Amino acid sequence: MRILFIGDIVGSPGRTMVRDYLPKLKDKYHPHVTIVNGENAAAGKGITEKIYKQFLEWGAQAVTLGNHAWDKKEIFDFIDDAKYMVRPANFPQNNPGKGLVFLNVNGIEVAIINLQGRTFLAPIDDPFTKIDILIEEAKKRTDIIFVDFHAETTSEKQALGWYVDGRVSAIVGTHTHVQTADERILPNGTAYITDVGMTGPYDGILGVEKEAVLKRFLTNLPVRFNVDEKGSTQLSAIILTIDKKTGRAESIKRILINDDHPFFT
Amino acid sequence: MRILFIGDIVGSPGRTMVRDYLPKLKDKYHPHVTIVNGENAAAGKGITEKIYKQFLEWGAQAVTLGNHAWDKKEIFDFIDDAKYMVRPANFPQNNPGKGLVFLNVNGIEVAIINLQGRTFLAPIDDPFTKIDILIEEAKKRTDIIFVDFHAETTSEKQALGWYVDGRVSAIVGTHTHVQTADERILPNGTAYITDVGMTGPYDGILGVEKEAVLKRFLTNLPVRFNVDEKGSTQLSAIILTIDKKTGRAESIKRILINDDHPFFT
Amino acid sequence: MRILFIGDIVGSPGRTMVRDYLPKLKDKYHPHVTIVNGENAAAGKGITEKIYKQFLEWGAQAVTLGNHAWDKKEIFDFIDDAKYMVRPANFPQNNPGKGLVFLNVNGIEVAIINLQGRTFLAPIDDPFTKIDILIEEAKKRTDIIFVDFHAETTSEKQALGWYVDGRVSAIVGTHTHVQTADERILPNGTAYITDVGMTGPYDGILGVEKEAVLKRFLTNLPVRFNVDEKGSTQLSAIILTIDKKTGRAESIKRILINDDHPFFT
Amino acid sequence: MRILFIGDIVGSPGRTMVRDYLPKLKDKYHPHVTIVNGENAAAGKGITEKIYKQFLEWGAQAVTLGNHAWDKKEIFDFIDDAKYMVRPANFPQNNPGKGLVFLNVNGIEVAIINLQGRTFLAPIDDPFTKIDILIEEAKKRTDIIFVDFHAETTSEKQALGWYVDGRVSAIVGTHTHVQTADERILPNGTAYITDVGMTGPYDGILGVEKEAVLKRFLTNLPVRFNVDEKGSTQLSAIILTIDKKTGRAESIKRILINDDHPFFT
Ligand SMILES: [Fe+2]
Ligand SMILES: [Fe+2]
Ligand SMILES: [Fe+2]
Ligand SMILES: [Fe+2]
Ligand SMILES: [Fe+2]
Ligand SMILES: [Fe+2]
Ligand SMILES: [Fe+2]
Ligand SMILES: [Fe+2]
Repeated sequence: MRILFIGDIVGSPGRTMVRDYLPKLKDKYHPHVTIVNGENAAAGKGITEKIYKQFLEWGAQAVTLGNHAWDKKEIFDFIDDAKYMVRPANFPQNNPGKGLVFLNVNGIEVAIINLQGRTFLAPIDDPFTKIDILIEEAKKRTDIIFVDFHAETTSEKQALGWYVDGRVSAIVGTHTHVQTADERILPNGTAYITDVGMTGPYDGILGVEKEAVLKRFLTNLPVRFNVDEKGSTQLSAIILTIDKKTGRAESIKRILINDDHPFFT
Repeated sequence: MRILFIGDIVGSPGRTMVRDYLPKLKDKYHPHVTIVNGENAAAGKGITEKIYKQFLEWGAQAVTLGNHAWDKKEIFDFIDDAKYMVRPANFPQNNPGKGLVFLNVNGIEVAIINLQGRTFLAPIDDPFTKIDILIEEAKKRTDIIFVDFHAETTSEKQALGWYVDGRVSAIVGTHTHVQTADERILPNGTAYITDVGMTGPYDGILGVEKEAVLKRFLTNLPVRFNVDEKGSTQLSAIILTIDKKTGRAESIKRILINDDHPFFT
Repeated sequence: MRILFIGDIVGSPGRTMVRDYLPKLKDKYHPHVTIVNGENAAAGKGITEKIYKQFLEWGAQAVTLGNHAWDKKEIFDFIDDAKYMVRPANFPQNNPGKGLVFLNVNGIEVAIINLQGRTFLAPIDDPFTKIDILIEEAKKRTDIIFVDFHAETTSEKQALGWYVDGRVSAIVGTHTHVQTADERILPNGTAYITDVGMTGPYDGILGVEKEAVLKRFLTNLPVRFNVDEKGSTQLSAIILTIDKKTGRAESIKRILINDDHPFFT
Repeated sequence: MRILFIGDIVGSPGRTMVRDYLPKLKDKYHPHVTIVNGENAAAGKGITEKIYKQFLEWGAQAVTLGNHAWDKKEIFDFIDDAKYMVRPANFPQNNPGKGLVFLNVNGIEVAIINLQGRTFLAPIDDPFTKIDILIEEAKKRTDIIFVDFHAETTSEKQALGWYVDGRVSAIVGTHTHVQTADERILPNGTAYITDVGMTGPYDGILGVEKEAVLKRFLTNLPVRFNVDEKGSTQLSAIILTIDKKTGRAESIKRILINDDHPFFT
């Protein structure tokens, strides 16, 4: 069982990268499941129904979110019907949407979990307590469990990774928009990476026009953060191999496509 | 001109890695200058005079610091005499030590700057304003300028990187203890990486025993954070090539040594 | 039903104030119940069994805590037997101690709840969700419910106040160590004050020696924060009148004793 | 020399309170100078030229600001010409506006300083270092120096208060929107209060509609924060007496006008 996961897709530059490279990545890696993080897909903030459906049309089977989940208001109109949208499961209990979704891949079930960290982010429910409950629920149906942990700090991400080692197939980080080089299989069989990185502008700052971010740091004056539409682009992803019988990860490989790392078939 | 930089060295596991691998790295890469970040060198917190001198004996020419600079009290006794110790230059002006150090390498001067970020860290002086002043000072003597930017967030690091592109030879991030995969030469000739990563325990959480960190996340009770002494170890570094006439970076390459990435000569 | 509540008691200057003034306050106000916040009672950090018992001997019936609850290690040895110690109820579920305590005052039950805020404090369980559960539990036995909400920001405190208006007798803030002047009875009968203020040194900074705090702000260097033992002292409290049949608050009055506000019988 | 200072004026409810009560306060206290904090005057966020001029027409001589200074874009169009607008002096040096303003009151000069704290607020320049420079500048012209310190925490406010004791006439806190009860004259003659409190809605949460703030705390979903226009209102202020020869404070008195504290002439 191979799973392809594409990190935070930012605005139209990010969506264009997915549209253009997802077919090529499928040709090269033959994933059984493709999951994408779409929290920044709509102009850097949130996601629309149209974009969600595009991702599914282009070949994703599920879309995860993060702290920007609610940035576009229309999310509240369609999230209840979006069967393959996964928002952080530890958001307050009254929130719309769901944090655990099951996919059926040729008769094999895959559980997809989205969680959000708390360090330097909003004070939501404890992701450690929550993941115990979610794993128990998922295990009733499958041992193939994929977790997108959307968090700021390396410590919280590594901690949750070690915490679930041997209990999920993979836990990959998102949110910092920079790919880390620490992908590994933990001792009990869980694939881990601190951050998959982002998909979109390559010359901005986390996808945003660098002039605006610099003005902010230099003056602390209010600035409008727009997605950088003018420069070159990148795609950040990982490809996992999972033993479909045990749910254990067999490999995790980073994918990075940009001007400095061209894609080869 | 080749510069080798080793990221946050944590405790005795980290120091042992430096002692064992620095000769091998020198054999392989022939750096003209070796710089190491030593903010966690003494049991994870701060640095002692003995350790500082060891680093120089083992072949480093300069030691940078960060938010843990003052953790060991004896630093105040020897920092004034430690000619090759560089602490964040944007610490309050009354602080001991210095943030810009010059090395003379066979007649060529190399400026080494240490700065610390402010996002999710202590509110110190503005690193953007400060780096303008430091670059001006350094440029009077040399165009070869190396910056260790010790910061938490990917946004502040990328922002400072773009801000100094073309004005320094290299700006590399430290502090998050996880190597990022985004090393590149920015358009105007500055080498950049968001974080070099740490050197020390491979199976802890940022170098700390994982049991303690997990207890902290699970209970929020007070725990003692000790360096993980029992598991395998890693070394994280980068090797830079800089045009000695112009100060422009020609290449930046990540180095990662651990069980999953064995060292090859 | 009159309840006297004394705010964060800091170190020996604070304890001395309680020992000296609690009898006088009892003479003047004749409270049926006296509650004190003891999170800083032991040298500014945490509480010991000896101090806890002293508070009961001196005439308190219950002791609340806050973010400093666990600072003294011996708390773990005696909290299970400390029937009248109330720690924040929204601490992780595996924590020792309890967050809701009942007192029997001449046949009338009084429920005492301690909760901690999350804004600019550790990410624990949601105090809003938790207080609903606690109120439901308390209401089974009594309508007289007192809440010590230990929190940093005025917004979180006012928000929880409005949230429980009409459902608890009183919700009073602690933690900032400065008494606020906004005591009032909310429209549905709940007494409210943003912060009761602290009891201890009057010339320190929140109870700590001002020289140390100033050195910290001026240099960001490590400093040891000791309770200011040398200057004059203060006591901060409130006295509540509650309708024992309905649990509604009838009055809330601030008490402030220091050199600028001498105590009058 | 008497100075009246009115704390954070929030939206039209706050402006109406100023318009209605400033004449009455002048009748009662006969201030020589009236200063108001206007950072929330325009619908809770920022200030417009029209409102600034209204404050001057209604009898204020100077308007201070805070973290909401730049919320209304038109501020950038008129701040350079607004002689009596004082924004935090420790904002980045490239920011428009000024942080120290002198008033001439019947031949006597009064210096007005605005500063902003850094704890839990944006990382700007150090207010401690900055205030030394500002005091030196002000002292060249006058010993009557008034400081509005806009900050979040009680510790930073008390620290700056002790730091300037004897060097300024008064330092009063703003920003938390809740009046504190700790007004005093520090030993060397500086009047101090941690927070003057806000002027505007009495039944909202810091001036904002409580329903919105509660929804935010309960769900963490995006909400629009509007000024509470429907309930009763309050005014928070202080009146200072200063020795015009020495600049020393002789008295500081809190003023609080609301349904629970009616105004008496
Ligand atoms: Fe993102
Ligand atoms: Fe995010
Ligand atoms: Fe470090
Ligand atoms: Fe660090
Ligand atoms: Fe306290
Ligand atoms: Fe506290
Ligand atoms: Fe305000
Ligand atoms: Fe403010």
